[in-house]
Amino acid sequence: MAERMVVIGGDAAGMAAASQARRRRDRADLEIVAFERGHFTSYSACGIPYWISGLVPERDQLVARDPATFREKFDIDVRLRHEVTAIDLDRREVLARDLDGGGEVRAGFDTLVYATGAVPLQPDWARGGIDGVFGVQTLDDGTALRQWLERDPRPRHAVVVGGGYIGVEMAEALIQRGLTVDLVEQADQPMSTVDPDMAELVADAMRGIGIGIRTGRTVTGLTERDGRIAAVVTDEGPVPADVVVLGLGVRPNTALAEAAGLPIGPSGGIRCDRRMRVPGVPGVWAAGDCVETLHRVSGMPVHIPLGTHANKQGRVAGINIGGGYATFPGVIGTAVTKVCDLEVGRTGLRERDAGAAGFEFVSVLTESTNRAGYYPGAQPMTVKLIAERPSGRLLGAQIVGRSEAAKRIDTLAVALWNGMTVDEMTALDLGYAPPYAPVWDPVLIAARKAVDALAAAGR
Amino acid sequence: MAERMVVIGGDAAGMAAASQARRRRDRADLEIVAFERGHFTSYSACGIPYWISGLVPERDQLVARDPATFREKFDIDVRLRHEVTAIDLDRREVLARDLDGGGEVRAGFDTLVYATGAVPLQPDWARGGIDGVFGVQTLDDGTALRQWLERDPRPRHAVVVGGGYIGVEMAEALIQRGLTVDLVEQADQPMSTVDPDMAELVADAMRGIGIGIRTGRTVTGLTERDGRIAAVVTDEGPVPADVVVLGLGVRPNTALAEAAGLPIGPSGGIRCDRRMRVPGVPGVWAAGDCVETLHRVSGMPVHIPLGTHANKQGRVAGINIGGGYATFPGVIGTAVTKVCDLEVGRTGLRERDAGAAGFEFVSVLTESTNRAGYYPGAQPMTVKLIAERPSGRLLGAQIVGRSEAAKRIDTLAVALWNGMTVDEMTALDLGYAPPYAPVWDPVLIAARKAVDALAAAGR
Repeated sequence: MAERMVVIGGDAAGMAAASQARRRRDRADLEIVAFERGHFTSYSACGIPYWISGLVPERDQLVARDPATFREKFDIDVRLRHEVTAIDLDRREVLARDLDGGGEVRAGFDTLVYATGAVPLQPDWARGGIDGVFGVQTLDDGTALRQWLERDPRPRHAVVVGGGYIGVEMAEALIQRGLTVDLVEQADQPMSTVDPDMAELVADAMRGIGIGIRTGRTVTGLTERDGRIAAVVTDEGPVPADVVVLGLGVRPNTALAEAAGLPIGPSGGIRCDRRMRVPGVPGVWAAGDCVETLHRVSGMPVHIPLGTHANKQGRVAGINIGGGYATFPGVIGTAVTKVCDLEVGRTGLRERDAGAAGFEFVSVLTESTNRAGYYPGAQPMTVKLIAERPSGRLLGAQIVGRSEAAKRIDTLAVALWNGMTVDEMTALDLGYAPPYAPVWDPVLIAARKAVDALAAAGR
Repeated sequence: MAERMVVIGGDAAGMAAASQARRRRDRADLEIVAFERGHFTSYSACGIPYWISGLVPERDQLVARDPATFREKFDIDVRLRHEVTAIDLDRREVLARDLDGGGEVRAGFDTLVYATGAVPLQPDWARGGIDGVFGVQTLDDGTALRQWLERDPRPRHAVVVGGGYIGVEMAEALIQRGLTVDLVEQADQPMSTVDPDMAELVADAMRGIGIGIRTGRTVTGLTERDGRIAAVVTDEGPVPADVVVLGLGVRPNTALAEAAGLPIGPSGGIRCDRRMRVPGVPGVWAAGDCVETLHRVSGMPVHIPLGTHANKQGRVAGINIGGGYATFPGVIGTAVTKVCDLEVGRTGLRERDAGAAGFEFVSVLTESTNRAGYYPGAQPMTVKLIAERPSGRLLGAQIVGRSEAAKRIDTLAVALWNGMTVDEMTALDLGYAPPYAPVWDPVLIAARKAVDALAAAGR
């Protein structure tokens, strides 16, 4: 009789695990059932802002693989709109509720993959159930927001609460739809995913397209009129709104896991070993935005919800469940984003992270260009490097530029991954041709300046 | 009394050495004299095609630093149009001829930097002195070509001989100037700097803009009419031309070095140690297109003339001459180029190189996109990886794409530099956001496929 693999959560991590297990074990050997409480499988949550803005015309473009594909091509029994409500590790079964039909199903498992993702942080003031207040965590969230934006009377003024990636991307998307937008952020700057000196460049670009940036403000509540949102109340007064987008970050969705006694780490995510097994719980695996992982630079456990990690972790779990061997060795905090006409990339530790991790370091900021200065279209590029002293080991990097900037962070990410020093980096053999780089690539210029800074600091 | 440093060759390597030495030692301590036989210092030879095409309007834009800057800001005595004709190591002096004035000067040195660059390969048939035949090695060459293109009667049909980087870039530049262009290449394909499967993509793009590609043809001579070029004669008949550009590659310019007894390596370049000292010849350094260097993947000495290496090597020499410490650890053969609407990148070994170096390997070719498939402007990208078997160690990589492709080679170059295996590479934490990459970056997709190919080959 076939073993049964049950997957909780039908997005990137869960379905990558299911697909990879299926590649290695056929139906006669392994039955696979996946429960997903939403309406979609394997979609790009990161693409939601571009669908909201209209840049991506159709919602279905964001769906990488639909349930029919999983059923027909992978022989995976996907149950949409089924919310798993309990995991019974003793009986080795899960209990799921059919959110449309209302029935309950029990499903026994030999192997369980916990891939429930993350849930938005929701302060008390956001829990009122006022119409016109949206998260953008799931495609269902995005669908609800888009319907609201298309209703009459059309919302004209939006407030985005939270200035992280999703908040910034949503603010831009709403401007592109023709709304006026205020972004309210508790910190002194939006885009705190990079250091303040770099974030200031981003804030300038946001102001440049008309986003009202209201920093240093704490939201205390929402006001409504006829059940619809009317304003976001802050400690410095109300900000009128007829649509509110919450981008306050997320936390690992571990409610079920905690109830079942799965181990939760200090970051709040489920603990996993390198093969994505939940330690001490045989046959149970976890992957994606619900787990914590090793930060390879700080050595600390972190929760970094991102599609690229979710896909890799799910794949690793699936290969191992399928009888192969794969490991997930952790992350270094690489991220890129488009903000207005800027490209922003980061990897490794920011200054505050490096300090918190106990490192001594120097940091340098350099200005150069993406192409040879004389080549048409050359644009400024700012590169920041943070290097341990006295060792010179790279700890983190950030880039802001207008063209061919974001993905240059990958060059630095691979250097960081491999523990290179900035001295070593000055010799890197990077591609050079006038349309693509100055003869000293911005990455090399930054490495040289970091070497100088180390020398000036007496290393 | 100040020591004297003499630099032979006033382009990237020589002037980088001079500037770095000056940063560390002032005039009272070190007098610096640089002899340059041409009209320019520190210019971008790589930029010549873009000036010929008109994309870069002014020749002076290609000059990074002119002699006046070196004199005034760096206190370096630059002597343009001075050709060094002999090095006397016993008397520690060089003899230079003033190409304009005709006089000879002798200059004693304590430290000598040999940075004479490379000279074009010139087969016998190209030595006739026919008007309208040009190399594009130096800015003086480019100036002569551009004057010819602007003469009446305007040349209308160009033949480019040689399909390497410079040949391909010049063919495109001449098309952009409105000429018709044939490219004659002895091999089966132009762009042999990448493997044939990748070169075919480039050849298609070249044909697409109207470049006539005539491969498998050996040039045997030139014909003239009234002293002007009339045709390039090949083993398959003549190809009419009223301007000919030679892009047959270059060799290290070692004539003076050989006469003086400096050691020449198997690649034909001057041998240097890691600090760019010429071994066994105290006080003599060399850098740039005239030297050979270590290929870090094959372990063999190679001659790879490229501005980025020349700058790095010159800088290393100058730091050391200045009393600092720096090394040049070799190259891995990274190069990028723009060919029509394609971006081409390569690093490490091609299949033929890997075979010649004695490696067993697998190679994989993958098709993906530069951005998320649903994001506007997503373009195809082809990535090829070559991995040693059974180790899985990356040996080489090539990329051809239409946008954000060329510099992605840097990610692979840093992985290669650090000796990563393709298995390790599948876990790399690279930047992901829909405008910049699919959730599996093309680099990661290629690494996964290489892992599969190794498994299929029984590793």
